[in-house]
Formats: sequence, C-alpha cells, structure tokens
Amino acid sequence: MIEDKNQNKTSLSELGEFGLINHLTKHFKLKNASTIKGVGDDAAVLDASEKQTLVSTDLLIEGVHFDLSYMPLKHLGYKAVMVNLSDVYAMNGTAEQITVSIAVSNRFPLEAIEELYAGIQLACETYNIDLIGGDTTSSTKGMLISVTAIGKAAKEDVVYRNGAKETDLIVVSGDLGAAYLGLQVLEREKQVFQVDPNNQPDLDAYTYLIERQLKPEARKDIAGLLKELGVKPTSMIDISDGLSSEIMHICSKSKVGCKLYEDKFPLDPQVISTCEEFNMDSTMIALSGGEDYELLFTVPIADFDNIKGNPNFSIIGHITEENQGMNLVTRANQEIALQAQGWNALKKE
Amino acid sequence: MIEDKNQNKTSLSELGEFGLINHLTKHFKLKNASTIKGVGDDAAVLDASEKQTLVSTDLLIEGVHFDLSYMPLKHLGYKAVMVNLSDVYAMNGTAEQITVSIAVSNRFPLEAIEELYAGIQLACETYNIDLIGGDTTSSTKGMLISVTAIGKAAKEDVVYRNGAKETDLIVVSGDLGAAYLGLQVLEREKQVFQVDPNNQPDLDAYTYLIERQLKPEARKDIAGLLKELGVKPTSMIDISDGLSSEIMHICSKSKVGCKLYEDKFPLDPQVISTCEEFNMDSTMIALSGGEDYELLFTVPIADFDNIKGNPNFSIIGHITEENQGMNLVTRANQEIALQAQGWNALKKE
Repeated sequence: MIEDKNQNKTSLSELGEFGLINHLTKHFKLKNASTIKGVGDDAAVLDASEKQTLVSTDLLIEGVHFDLSYMPLKHLGYKAVMVNLSDVYAMNGTAEQITVSIAVSNRFPLEAIEELYAGIQLACETYNIDLIGGDTTSSTKGMLISVTAIGKAAKEDVVYRNGAKETDLIVVSGDLGAAYLGLQVLEREKQVFQVDPNNQPDLDAYTYLIERQLKPEARKDIAGLLKELGVKPTSMIDISDGLSSEIMHICSKSKVGCKLYEDKFPLDPQVISTCEEFNMDSTMIALSGGEDYELLFTVPIADFDNIKGNPNFSIIGHITEENQGMNLVTRANQEIALQAQGWNALKKE
Repeated sequence: MIEDKNQNKTSLSELGEFGLINHLTKHFKLKNASTIKGVGDDAAVLDASEKQTLVSTDLLIEGVHFDLSYMPLKHLGYKAVMVNLSDVYAMNGTAEQITVSIAVSNRFPLEAIEELYAGIQLACETYNIDLIGGDTTSSTKGMLISVTAIGKAAKEDVVYRNGAKETDLIVVSGDLGAAYLGLQVLEREKQVFQVDPNNQPDLDAYTYLIERQLKPEARKDIAGLLKELGVKPTSMIDISDGLSSEIMHICSKSKVGCKLYEDKFPLDPQVISTCEEFNMDSTMIALSGGEDYELLFTVPIADFDNIKGNPNFSIIGHITEENQGMNLVTRANQEIALQAQGWNALKKE
C-alpha cells in the first residue's frame, strides 16, 4: 500500500533533513502559553511558571508495535501521540508539548510521511498540544517513531503510582479489552486477505473494537472530571499493557495488595460478543489485553458516593494489606492470584 | 564482535521489559534538585522553579549514524548523551535530565546493553545529569537510541539562533574538523582489517582525531566561561553538521550575512597532517566535517577584547548585512559563497 512504486512520489532525499522538518511542521501552530520556542533552534524553550513539568517518552517500531498492512499512517501518527499523552494524564497533569522523531527507510515517499504527520497534527489540534521539536532520519529498515510528551501540573495535583492505601477503592475509566480484540479482528482479516484478496470483509460487528485499536483516545478529560467531583486519586496509572500488569505496578510501588472483582469489569457488548465468537475469556482479555489507554486509579473509600454511578467510572475492587497479595475474585467467589500477562515488546520477536 | 555467539550471555527476553529497565537503571542516582521523580512512574516530574525549560531530542540509528564494528558500545552510549547535551548548552543553558529509549534486535545479549548503559552512566556522572525515563523495546533489525535532553536557564540567559546583528563577531570554541577525520581513519582501518585481520594498526598519529570521533565532549563549560568574561552571545548553535551548515542557520534565522576567514579557522596539528596524508583540504573539512560538538556563537564587536586571546575561543569572522550573502574569505583574499555541505542523514543510504 505504501511502497514507493509510483514514480510521481517525492523521494525524501530530495528535500534533505532540514527541508523535510520544515515541510512537515510548517502547518503546526503553537497553542500553549508555556511554549516559548518550538521547532527551529537547538532546543525548545518552555516555561511551566510555578508548576511542575511532566515528561514521558515512548518508542513505536514497525513490525513490533504496529503493522502498516492494516494501520493507516494517519492513524499511526495519531496513536503515537495518544500513547504518550496518556502517560501525562496518568500523572493527573495537562499535556502541552510533544517532540516527534521519526526514522524511515527509503521505501517511504514524502507523501507517506505527510500522512503520518497529518495524524500527528490532528492529535495536536484535538488535544491542544504544541509540536516543539524532533529529529528526522533514514533507517536501514522500516519505520519507527519516538515521541516525548511534556506536560505540567501543580505540585499538589501530581498523582504517582505509589500512594494507594489499604481500603482504597480501585477505579477504572471507560471499558476494557476492546483494543486487543480489535487487533485480533484486524489480524484475522489480514490473513483472509492474504488467501483471498477479493474478499470484502464485513466489519460492522467490530467497529468499536477496531476504532479502539486504530484510533485510541487518551483520557484528557479525567483530571477535570475528578476535580469537579472533588476527588483526588491516591495513585494512578494508564492502561497500556493490560489491567493486571498495571494494578500490579500500583500495588508494588504502594506496597499494598488488591482484590479485583471479575463481575465489576466494564466490558462493551462488542467485547462480549466477539469473545464468544473467538472463544476467548472476556475476563482474561480485560486483564491482559492492553492498549486501552484508560486510566486506572485508587481513591479513598470516603469518595465512594462521588464515584458510584458516574458513567465514566467503574469501581472494580479495593486495596488490601500487602501480605494478602494481588487477587482476582471470580464470579464463583474464588480468589486467584493475578499474573502480569500484559504485552511485552521484548518477547514479541 | 557483539554477536551473541556466547551461550553464557543473557538473552534480553529473559528479563522482560520492566526487568530490563530496572536492571539497567538501578545504578543511576538522581543528582539534581529539579528532578522530583525519575524513572518508575508514567512520567518523570521536574521542577525548573522560576527558570525556563530547554528540551532537545536526537535519534541515532545503527548503519546510519554509527557503525558498531569500530564504535564500542560504551562509547556509543556516551556519545548519544553528548549529542543531546550539546544542544542544551547551545541555548546557554544547564542540562540536567535525559530520557533514553533504545530498540535492539535479539542479536544483542544483555551484556551488550549493559556496556551501552555504562557509557550513558559515565556521561551522566561526568555532566551531572539525571536519567529520568525512557523506553526499551526490541527491533526487527539493529540498534537505535533516542535521547531527549532537558535543561534550564533563566529567561534572560537563553540564547537563540536568531539574534546575530551586523558587525557582531563570529566565534567558535575549540577546534574544527577532527571528529570527521577520525571517522575517515576508522573507516580506512576497517577496510584494512577486512583485507588482513592480522594487521595491527598503528594509530598513534591519530589519537586526537579518533577520540573526537568516538568520545566527543559537549561544551558544558562555555556558558560559565562567557558569564565570567561578562559576555552574552547574541546567537549560538552547536556544530553537529559542520561549521558551514551551522553559520547558515544562524544567518538565515537572524536575517543577516557573514564573512568567515579561512586563515582564522582553529585546526589541531593532527587535522593538518592527516589532511595532507589523505589529500584533503583542511578548510573544507573544517567547514563541512561535522560532529565537532563545539559551540558557534556571535558576540557584539564591543566584546572583542573579552574574547581575543582566550585559548578557548577563536574569532573566525563577522556578521554582515543580509544582502552581502554568506561568504568565505580565502587566504588569497577571494570571496566564495558558503554552501551547506554538512552531513545529511537522509542522503546517507
């Protein structure tokens, strides 16, 4: 789809490195007062005033983190930004800047990189983010994207992973498992396509799943929602590797245990029906699926009434003493020790 | 050299992603008061107090930016940090934090990545830098390193590229061209080695050149030196792509022209002798070599007495009106228009 077979396409080396950066970033407008200087000098210059600065970075590699046979480049650009903003929101902060570095092999024409940057730009506009720098280079194979997100928060608002206390409620935003199932659907369609390129897939039953995989949205809204409710989480993390792996991070950093209740997991109807079709256990998918980019956090039990019934949140368990371990309570009321079975980029080879 | 032929070596997948990050970063100690939280949460937390924050990022790719057949991994780690600190120093700031993301194929055992991080750690200790985050993943081919450097400076101290004024003096720290010649020497030795692996190279005549290529030092000292002299540059940039390319950035951002004087270029004796041996023009090497990581800056002509005779600095030209263009004045007193012939990662394929 994106091989450079069309001789009308523009080769990247025609533009040179500085030409390419200028070309790709000229339509990006700075939006935040904290961005004093963006692209175009040795370093960007930021001013967080009295606030603390939040920094997070992620690397996405073709063939490891994404497959361009079903991931459109514009969606990839959008998702690469979301993945990083999500980390800043998970600190209860406001994301304001990103740097984007890309390496691309010469199989990509300029038009492909423009598509990628169109997705990055859409993300920047939707989430009020300034692109302030980056690096553009060639690779010997494939494409990779490295994004660093920068945000800010008042010192008293920053939420770490290590503040969960016994009896705290465990809360998750949105629903779980859809992004992973979206990937399974896309992988299946790719295989069908390889066998029969004329087959027209009917994906109506999976639209939510596919959107969650290809165009995830970071939960920019949660910090504000919680502030309105008068709730400050005691710990928070975003769900990139799967619920199980993330709650284990919170528990180990906070030196506590937890109980998660299987019957409380928020699942979209498409997740339930697709799990049946694929003969998968929806609880396993919710625990280990990953890429949901929802926020997982703990709140004092006194905030129960503030969270309960809010359609944005599900209370899925509570924090226990450390020596009770980290457990799932099944519908049959059995306790099973949690395992971190989330996605591991180092094992995917 | 670093192929995983030794079965006693540790495979990266044994550790998993979080295990690897913990393993690699556990010996890094936080040193700066501005680092509130480093590795281990969704985002790092920084506090620049009243100062402005400087952010710069670079991507280094095996086969494009470095060749592991003569670049030891420890040196590579050190250099990857230097390249980024240099950008912060070029803003007249203090570098305080880095994030490091790496992707490695399964040909690298853990011990190789430890070597890389030993170099990163040495750089952090020597330059008083905190490692505050990053990402570790597998790649389908080779190694890449993405570093983001963060620093700070008082608002009134930040020096941009765009402040050069007519009659300003053009000044460069250190000397030029050695890193590029070091690369030429190493490339030649690699070819000799391929023909005759038993040949013992005698590199005594090139020690400075090779050190400048394999272990460059960023000019952390310049901001302090200039402050002591009571000099504030009107513009500044670091020399990564070559003097010619860098002065052209300053001129185009400042909307001015320049004259550089060939006979003023600071050249190490090894640069001069090796240029003769390789039959290269030392002026061309100084202009286009790149990777010197010296600082190029402009100062008001009133500062002439403060800069003149200082062994750290060479006055190599002056700023002119924009319509006079950007020119080199040769020893024969001829004027030649400068060309940006610096290193371009997009053309190196």
